[in-house]
Amino acid sequence: MFSKILIANRGEVAVRIIRACREMGIETVAVYSEADENSLPVALADERICIGSNAATDSYLNQRNIISAALATNAEAIHPGYGFLSENPDFAALCEEKGLIFIGPDSKVLRAMGDKDNSRQLMKSIGVPVVPGTEILHDVEEAKKQAAEIGYPILVKATAGGGGKGIRVVSHADELENAFMAASEEAKNAFGNGDVFLEKYLTSVRHVEMQILADNFGNIVCLGERDCSLQLNKQKVLEETPCPVMTEEVRRKMMDAAVKAAKAAHYVNAGTVEFLLAPDGNFYFIEMNTRLQVEHPITEEISDVDIVKWQIRIACQIPLDFKQEDIHLHGHSIECRINARSTGQVDFLHIPGGSRVHFDTALVQDCLIVPYYDSMIGKLIVYASNRGDAIRKMETALCEMVIHGINTNIEDQLHLIRNRQFQSGEYDTMALPEILAEGDAEIE
Amino acid sequence: MFSKILIANRGEVAVRIIRACREMGIETVAVYSEADENSLPVALADERICIGSNAATDSYLNQRNIISAALATNAEAIHPGYGFLSENPDFAALCEEKGLIFIGPDSKVLRAMGDKDNSRQLMKSIGVPVVPGTEILHDVEEAKKQAAEIGYPILVKATAGGGGKGIRVVSHADELENAFMAASEEAKNAFGNGDVFLEKYLTSVRHVEMQILADNFGNIVCLGERDCSLQLNKQKVLEETPCPVMTEEVRRKMMDAAVKAAKAAHYVNAGTVEFLLAPDGNFYFIEMNTRLQVEHPITEEISDVDIVKWQIRIACQIPLDFKQEDIHLHGHSIECRINARSTGQVDFLHIPGGSRVHFDTALVQDCLIVPYYDSMIGKLIVYASNRGDAIRKMETALCEMVIHGINTNIEDQLHLIRNRQFQSGEYDTMALPEILAEGDAEIE
Repeated sequence: MFSKILIANRGEVAVRIIRACREMGIETVAVYSEADENSLPVALADERICIGSNAATDSYLNQRNIISAALATNAEAIHPGYGFLSENPDFAALCEEKGLIFIGPDSKVLRAMGDKDNSRQLMKSIGVPVVPGTEILHDVEEAKKQAAEIGYPILVKATAGGGGKGIRVVSHADELENAFMAASEEAKNAFGNGDVFLEKYLTSVRHVEMQILADNFGNIVCLGERDCSLQLNKQKVLEETPCPVMTEEVRRKMMDAAVKAAKAAHYVNAGTVEFLLAPDGNFYFIEMNTRLQVEHPITEEISDVDIVKWQIRIACQIPLDFKQEDIHLHGHSIECRINARSTGQVDFLHIPGGSRVHFDTALVQDCLIVPYYDSMIGKLIVYASNRGDAIRKMETALCEMVIHGINTNIEDQLHLIRNRQFQSGEYDTMALPEILAEGDAEIE
Repeated sequence: MFSKILIANRGEVAVRIIRACREMGIETVAVYSEADENSLPVALADERICIGSNAATDSYLNQRNIISAALATNAEAIHPGYGFLSENPDFAALCEEKGLIFIGPDSKVLRAMGDKDNSRQLMKSIGVPVVPGTEILHDVEEAKKQAAEIGYPILVKATAGGGGKGIRVVSHADELENAFMAASEEAKNAFGNGDVFLEKYLTSVRHVEMQILADNFGNIVCLGERDCSLQLNKQKVLEETPCPVMTEEVRRKMMDAAVKAAKAAHYVNAGTVEFLLAPDGNFYFIEMNTRLQVEHPITEEISDVDIVKWQIRIACQIPLDFKQEDIHLHGHSIECRINARSTGQVDFLHIPGGSRVHFDTALVQDCLIVPYYDSMIGKLIVYASNRGDAIRKMETALCEMVIHGINTNIEDQLHLIRNRQFQSGEYDTMALPEILAEGDAEIE
C-alpha cells in the first residue's frame, strides 16, 4: 500500500480523502492556495504545502507546483478528487512521466472518454444506446440540415464541455445559429476547444448515472444507480439512490450497459456512466465521468462499499475482493448539496447529527467562505431503510442545521424535500426550477 | 401515534429523543433546569419549560414539576431517557395516575425488576443462571457465615444500588464488616434503602448485556449483545458489539435467557439484561436495566433497528413489525464515552464526521459545561463491516475531535483504542485501569 498520498484538491472532498487515508494508515499531504491556509483539510493532513495564490489557475490547477509538492514530500500517489485536474489527461500524463501514481484512470482513458464525441462513437459501436445526434459540425448550414432531420428541440453541445458550459437548448431553427456560435465560443474560452455537435433534446427524462469500480485485473462491478435529475442551471442539487421510478428490469439493463461501457473503454478505477432515462424505460448514454463523483456517498450508504478507499487500492494494483453478486444494495440514501450564496465568516455552525446522518464538509467554527472556488460548502447525506424514512430524516437534519454569517440554500433544500412532487418521486430534469418557484422559494 | 411527547431528561439523550420524535412527526417539549436554559435540546424542542434550579433534585428529579409541565403543554407521553427518573416506579405510577403515558415498562415491572434481590429470585425460578449469592442480610455475623460458604473474593451489594453506588469488593473476611456497613450506608443515603446481600465475585469475567424489545402483544425480540467490560470505577467507558470473544453457541443461549427473563418479568418496552460472561462460556444474570441504555446506539448500528422510535411505538400500543428471524446482525460498532474532566465554556468544537461516524452530544459551539450533572458530554460511535476497520475508524475520529476550553478523556480513549490488549479483544472487567496505567495515561 502507498505510504503517502498528496491530495490535489480542497474543501470537503479533500477532507473525505484524508479521512480515508487515515483509516488506511496512509500519510497525507495537503496542498493549498493562500486563501485556504487555515482550512480543515490543511489542518487534518500530516503535511501541507502552499502551491500558489487564490485563483485556481495559480494553485489547484497549477500542475507544476502540485507535481513539485508531491516530489518534495515523497508522496507516491496523487488523489485529484473531483473538478480541478481530476479529468485532465495532461496532468495524469505528467504524473505518469514523473513516476507518480495518478489515482484514477490512465491518461489515455481520460483523453478518450473526455472527448464526448469519441465516447459516443465508442458506445454506439458496442450497442449501448446514445441520444440521436451528429458528429462534430464545423458549419452552421450543415447543423441546420441535420437538426431538421433529428427534429427540435435540439441541444448544441461542445465536445469538451462540462459543468453546464458549452451547451445550449434550441427550440426553433431560427435560434440555431446563435446557439451554435455561443456554445462553440464558450467552450473555446473555457476548455480551449470549440468543437460542437447536435443532440436530440429529450423531454420528461431523468438523469440517472451508474457507479462502477474496475480494477487492473479485468474485474468490473456496478454499485447501482443515482438519480441526479434535480438540477438548477445544469448543477445537481439533490441526488438519491435508488432512483424512485427504476424497475428491476431497467436497472439490470442499465447496469449491464455501464459495465459494457467501462469494459470497452478499458476503464480502471472508479467511474460513472451517465444516462438519460425516458418514461418508456429506454435510456441513452450521455457521458462517462472518469473520476470520483460529488454524489458518491449515497452509493456508499446503500452498497457498504467505500469508493474512495477502493480508488486508492485499485491505484495500488490491489484487485477487487468482491464480485457483482456480493453487492446487495439496500435502503435509500439522499444527498442535499449545501451551497453558499455569499462569502464571509461562518460565525455560528451547528451540524446536525445522529445515526446515518452526516455532513461532508470542510466547514469549521469561524471559518471563512472565500469567493474563489465552487459555491458548494457541504453535502448533507442521510440513509434509511426506505425512501419515506430517508425523506423525513433529511427534513429533520435540514431543520437542525445552522450556518450563520453567510447565506445558503438550506431553505430551498427544505422546500424541495417537503414538496409533494418530490415526495411522489415523479420528477424529471426540468422539475426543480418549477418546484422552487412554487412557494416563493428563492432561486439560485 | 402521540402528537406530543415531553422529554424528562437533558444532554445528549434529550437530543437523541427529540430527533427521533421529529422524524416521526411528533412534537416535543423540553424541560430544563436553570443551568440548561441555553442547551441544545431546549433549542431543538418545539416547546420548553423550566422545571427548577440547577440541582437535579430540584429539576430533573422533581416529579411534580415535570408532571405539571406535561399537563400544561398537553403532552400525551413522557420519555424519561436514562438516569434521573427513568427507573423510578413512583414516577411511572404518578404518570399512570395523571393519565400520562410513561415511555417504558409499567410501574409494577419497574418496581419488581428494580429490586435486585427480587429479580435474582425470579431468574433463579425460571432457570436463568445467577451469580451464587445470598438473600438480603441484616446482620454482619450472618454475612460472615454465608461469605465463608460462597468463598472470597465476594461482593457486598445493595438491592437498590446502581451506577457504582452501594457496592464493595471484599477480598478477606476481616474486611467484610466495614464493607457491609459502608455499602448499606451509601445505598441508604443515595436511594433510601440500605438492604444489602452478598454475591460471589467472579474474576476474568466480561460484562455482556443483551438488548431486548418487547411489545404489548407478547412479541419479544433480542437485538444481540454489547460488551461493556471496559469500566472505570464501575462506569462504562467503551462498549462494542459484537462481543469479540462471543461464540455463536453462547450468543444463542444468552439471547434465549434474555428473552426468557423478559417474558417472566412481563416486560414491555426496551430493556437490557446484563450478564457476567466467564471464560468457560458460562454466564450469570446480574440485573435488568428497565430503560434505554446509554450504549444503545451500537446495537442500532448492527441491527438497523431504531430503539428509541420503537420505545415510542410500543408505548403507543403498536406491535413490533418484525420477528426474531428478521433481525440480521452485521458488522461491528464501537462507542467511546467522552467525559468532561472540568467545567467551563467549550470555546472551540470540532466534531469528526464522515460516513458511519457520529457523535451523540448536546455540545454546541460556545456552550457551557456545568458541574451539576453527569460528566458524560457525548458518545462517539462508529460502525464498520469488521472489528479491525471499526477500530481504525474510531482512532481516526478520536484524532480529529477537538473540544477546547475544558479537559476531557479523549486522550485516554485514544490510548485505549490503540492498546494491544484491547485490539486483541482479550479483556475483562478489570482490564481498563491497567490499560490506562500503561503509557502514563491519566486515570479518571
